Amino acid sequence: MAARREGTKTLVPGMPQNIYDQTDFFLGYSRLQRSVLGLAGAPEWPALRAMLPPLSGLRVLDLGCGFGAFARWAREAGAVSVLGVDLSENMLARARAETHDAAVVYRRGDIEQLELDADSFDVVYSSLALHYVANLAAVCALVRRVLTAGGAFVFSVEHPVFTAPRHPVWQRDAAGVAAWPLNHYLDESARVTDWIAPGVVKQHRCIATYVNTLLDHGMRLTRLVEWAPDATLIAHHPDWADEPHRPPFLLIGAQRP
Amino acid sequence: MAARREGTKTLVPGMPQNIYDQTDFFLGYSRLQRSVLGLAGAPEWPALRAMLPPLSGLRVLDLGCGFGAFARWAREAGAVSVLGVDLSENMLARARAETHDAAVVYRRGDIEQLELDADSFDVVYSSLALHYVANLAAVCALVRRVLTAGGAFVFSVEHPVFTAPRHPVWQRDAAGVAAWPLNHYLDESARVTDWIAPGVVKQHRCIATYVNTLLDHGMRLTRLVEWAPDATLIAHHPDWADEPHRPPFLLIGAQRP
Repeated sequence: MAARREGTKTLVPGMPQNIYDQTDFFLGYSRLQRSVLGLAGAPEWPALRAMLPPLSGLRVLDLGCGFGAFARWAREAGAVSVLGVDLSENMLARARAETHDAAVVYRRGDIEQLELDADSFDVVYSSLALHYVANLAAVCALVRRVLTAGGAFVFSVEHPVFTAPRHPVWQRDAAGVAAWPLNHYLDESARVTDWIAPGVVKQHRCIATYVNTLLDHGMRLTRLVEWAPDATLIAHHPDWADEPHRPPFLLIGAQRP
Repeated sequence: MAARREGTKTLVPGMPQNIYDQTDFFLGYSRLQRSVLGLAGAPEWPALRAMLPPLSGLRVLDLGCGFGAFARWAREAGAVSVLGVDLSENMLARARAETHDAAVVYRRGDIEQLELDADSFDVVYSSLALHYVANLAAVCALVRRVLTAGGAFVFSVEHPVFTAPRHPVWQRDAAGVAAWPLNHYLDESARVTDWIAPGVVKQHRCIATYVNTLLDHGMRLTRLVEWAPDATLIAHHPDWADEPHRPPFLLIGAQRP
């Protein structure tokens, strides 16, 4: 559920690419648990939801809205309006088909170059989209500008220890204990991985860069969550047993003062 | 340079232990570059110094003052007074012997149980001490209480990706590329490592816990630095070449609002 931009040098600068509109990738993505089940299929969702303010009466912006699951939930939770932005026509087509609510608007756009009115949203939300974005500073500047005073910015990204390695494959010692081969952590640049389709490009950046870019744009940090499934989730999904060794997701809460 | 507490269950609860007063460890520690050269021997010091406010006219508290190198520097930088606290008699004896300045006071104490007046310091500093502390919340509560409004808390710890693994030994693939075997990241508990002496106990906790514990005690985060040597340092210390794969130190700046 994410707008994205290819980070490779062969692409035209400033021309966002969008793997979610490549048919093979889109079909594969559509079969993921979180695509089929929506928020109920995203195990980190309860933790992210807990970082949101009560949405009653608030105007919400969703950066990388995907199929619109969050937009529809936000309306059920009392938001007066939701603007969902995504780069993918495929995602937006399904979002529009599944949403029957005049207070939810979907717009195609590159979240690094959005034009929106200042002080026009009370909450900005983004789920697993910003690790595709090359220019995080532009997004933080946008969020700071469009949020009202006291407004919240709550987002998730793939955790930097997850995105850093050049060969992200679990290693096992003789006793079968898993270890994640962390390297290149401080090398902030594109990572090309095979996820659903070969050659998916994500932007690796450090935790400190996520945090300091927010601070440098006048935001206040309110919460940091390094998320992995807990014992209850693992009991239902034994294949997630290694995840707590290196959290797959980083959740960040911030506020415009 | 650190007060510390053994985290093992065989020790009397509430009775801090102190490996810096064990002769073999102390002698080994005293031979480290940072012990011989002081701040000039601590490669992360310039980054930590850059996070401090100008000290002119300020009252400074140093938690885990060790040999007093920072206390003496703070006075040269204009601090009106420095209180250095450490658990180690060995460290404090050398600190006192090397400091000839009535405005620097050293006190033996457990930084988890210090009694100090409220609003009595403008800056609290701590270098590589808090990863020995079992009760981080107690330290954050202390810092919040003793700082004046607008006061700064600047500290370094071993980076959580450094402290997490159960077997913290570099792995190398067939091409010789190093990887750090990250595991047990979310298992916040004591880690026993062989560092200078066997059986050194450190408290592993996540980045999120350092940050959220500060926030939960009314502090505001001002900066996060995941430190590893840069190319210039590595050119002088080729044995540090792998460090940027997983930063060894985490530096945190916070402010009492």
